[in-house]
Amino acid sequence: MNVRVNGRSKHYRTVTFDADKNAVMLIEQRLLPHKFKIIGTQDFCETAAAIKDMIVRGAGAIGATAAYGLAQGASAFRGSDLRRFSRHVDTVYKTLKAARPTAVDPVNAMNDVRRSMSSGETVEERQALALAAAEEFANQDVAHCQAIGEHGGKLIRNGMRVLTHCNAGWLAFVDIGSATAPMYAARKAGKKFHVFCDETRPRCQGATLTAWELAQEGVSHQVIADNAAGHLMQRGEIDMVIVGSDRTLGRTGEVANKIGTYTKAVLAKRHNIPFYVAIPLSTIDWNLRKGRDIPIEERCESEVLGAWGSNGISRSHYVRIANPTSGARNPGFDVTPAELITGIITPVGIFKPQDLWKNRNKLGS
Amino acid sequence: MNVRVNGRSKHYRTVTFDADKNAVMLIEQRLLPHKFKIIGTQDFCETAAAIKDMIVRGAGAIGATAAYGLAQGASAFRGSDLRRFSRHVDTVYKTLKAARPTAVDPVNAMNDVRRSMSSGETVEERQALALAAAEEFANQDVAHCQAIGEHGGKLIRNGMRVLTHCNAGWLAFVDIGSATAPMYAARKAGKKFHVFCDETRPRCQGATLTAWELAQEGVSHQVIADNAAGHLMQRGEIDMVIVGSDRTLGRTGEVANKIGTYTKAVLAKRHNIPFYVAIPLSTIDWNLRKGRDIPIEERCESEVLGAWGSNGISRSHYVRIANPTSGARNPGFDVTPAELITGIITPVGIFKPQDLWKNRNKLGS
Repeated sequence: MNVRVNGRSKHYRTVTFDADKNAVMLIEQRLLPHKFKIIGTQDFCETAAAIKDMIVRGAGAIGATAAYGLAQGASAFRGSDLRRFSRHVDTVYKTLKAARPTAVDPVNAMNDVRRSMSSGETVEERQALALAAAEEFANQDVAHCQAIGEHGGKLIRNGMRVLTHCNAGWLAFVDIGSATAPMYAARKAGKKFHVFCDETRPRCQGATLTAWELAQEGVSHQVIADNAAGHLMQRGEIDMVIVGSDRTLGRTGEVANKIGTYTKAVLAKRHNIPFYVAIPLSTIDWNLRKGRDIPIEERCESEVLGAWGSNGISRSHYVRIANPTSGARNPGFDVTPAELITGIITPVGIFKPQDLWKNRNKLGS
Repeated sequence: MNVRVNGRSKHYRTVTFDADKNAVMLIEQRLLPHKFKIIGTQDFCETAAAIKDMIVRGAGAIGATAAYGLAQGASAFRGSDLRRFSRHVDTVYKTLKAARPTAVDPVNAMNDVRRSMSSGETVEERQALALAAAEEFANQDVAHCQAIGEHGGKLIRNGMRVLTHCNAGWLAFVDIGSATAPMYAARKAGKKFHVFCDETRPRCQGATLTAWELAQEGVSHQVIADNAAGHLMQRGEIDMVIVGSDRTLGRTGEVANKIGTYTKAVLAKRHNIPFYVAIPLSTIDWNLRKGRDIPIEERCESEVLGAWGSNGISRSHYVRIANPTSGARNPGFDVTPAELITGIITPVGIFKPQDLWKNRNKLGS
């Protein structure tokens, strides 16, 4: 999507590859929203560190970063010995995988790249195939988000006020995003609408990343406290909710997403406001049978007990908000049942959550 | 309630009067939770400034502060001319009233004091009557909170997990508080229970003031993000909700309180969790006919776009969290309908919200 730099709008992807420099180019997301900067990783170790250190985050974005990182590592190999090359690629693969061990996207992406490479007969051929496959993975990610936008964009009508939670935007993918895709598509179609961004405590991805994205694209928006949406719904000031998902159960239509998503779904139901979840197909889990079995990560207490922000000097300054002798509970995610969800927006169409299973062939199960 | 200072627990009221020094003694609430300090105002102008500058906040607390401030101003008068004394007292009254023009408690409290004074026949008598009346107002506030605790404390059973929102604690009153009164009563009765404090963005009164209070009293508690309660309710980890109220409509049972209260009531209803509101009788509005007519204050955007906390050096350090080019909506309160409220805990008993009107004589209409 576009970023305004020095008063001009320029198109960027979250992750790209510079073949001349053999470098993975990333938006340094830890500096956002206070500073926009592109960094280039010099080798696959730096690329792994960029994933580990959260310079890049979000399912699609780390998938593409790992794919490019594998190609980067492969390209750096000097020599023509295929066995030594394979051992080298294994090291690269393991290093990148270890950077975010719980995520599934980097592994899937790198498996794609490895599969493509295997048809090459020389080191050079395999290096070229790796790069082409990584590029293909990134382009696929963009195409999927584009398709989500095409389906979901139709739901947004002129004058609507749309609520979103957390960041399922282009910064979490290679471009366009999932929950934001319908917004960007509607904007492209010339529609006028307004977005309320839940700030999304404790990490405030809504106030920082989503608000930044929407500002770059010139989408009308305001940040609200997570406490405020209920009141706005009650007063008739929200017409629709669109969120992303970390994991959607193909068997039940239950949606795991950032903590607070469930609350918004309960409120939307009470006020008869449509509640949509936008997802790429890779986040559908076809195996798990019950939402209750999704492990809910308990995160660090300090996230709840304080906040990070800019104080004008430092861009990532932590202040302790809470009473110094109090502790916190910090569940990172929650699970929204299918009955509260109006539709799941996917690259291949919009489905009722209860209908995912019977459409599993179409949805790539 | 008790405060732990240098390892010892000592009883404090939020507001007291030092007759020897003719000073209103206040907990400097702007330093909490990071530092506990008592300040004494030297004259009624300083007392008015303490109200205006939020050194003291909360309905009962500013009522008592204004009552003491009026007595303080009256006591400072030198001479025996009753007409000049009355003019002086008028000035004091107006100065204290102007310190928080929208609040009703300081006015009610000062009217009480003035009424009592009028029976005195000399300046000296009136000065003594003013002080006695202010003391009486503060003691009444404590007695009302005590009574709320006696009725509400019975609702808390051993092992319960109680959610509260914002601060309706002893810092908002002279002592004990409203929403916290049942907790302190249950604690006194030796019951074991756990309190979840919603952090209560944007001003975080739950994370700062309520958590601090509970820590001083040794009540088991944890701070949670406002996003987390829905998930905890879904997993069966919350047994009861108790909140305070800024205004309760006697005719409909609707409750205006800090933004986010309505959301918690909707969630509690879905999970069949009892939702109680604890109030002194002074917050019941017997005139207004519809909750929708309660004006909802739109507060400053900067509250949502950033946060105040301690950075180890400064105790009230502001950091900007949100994207610098984004704005915010910041409604300060919301209105919870009667159907979501299990009971209203008052000093004279617990009532269904729909039954306030028919009990209006008992409730002091």
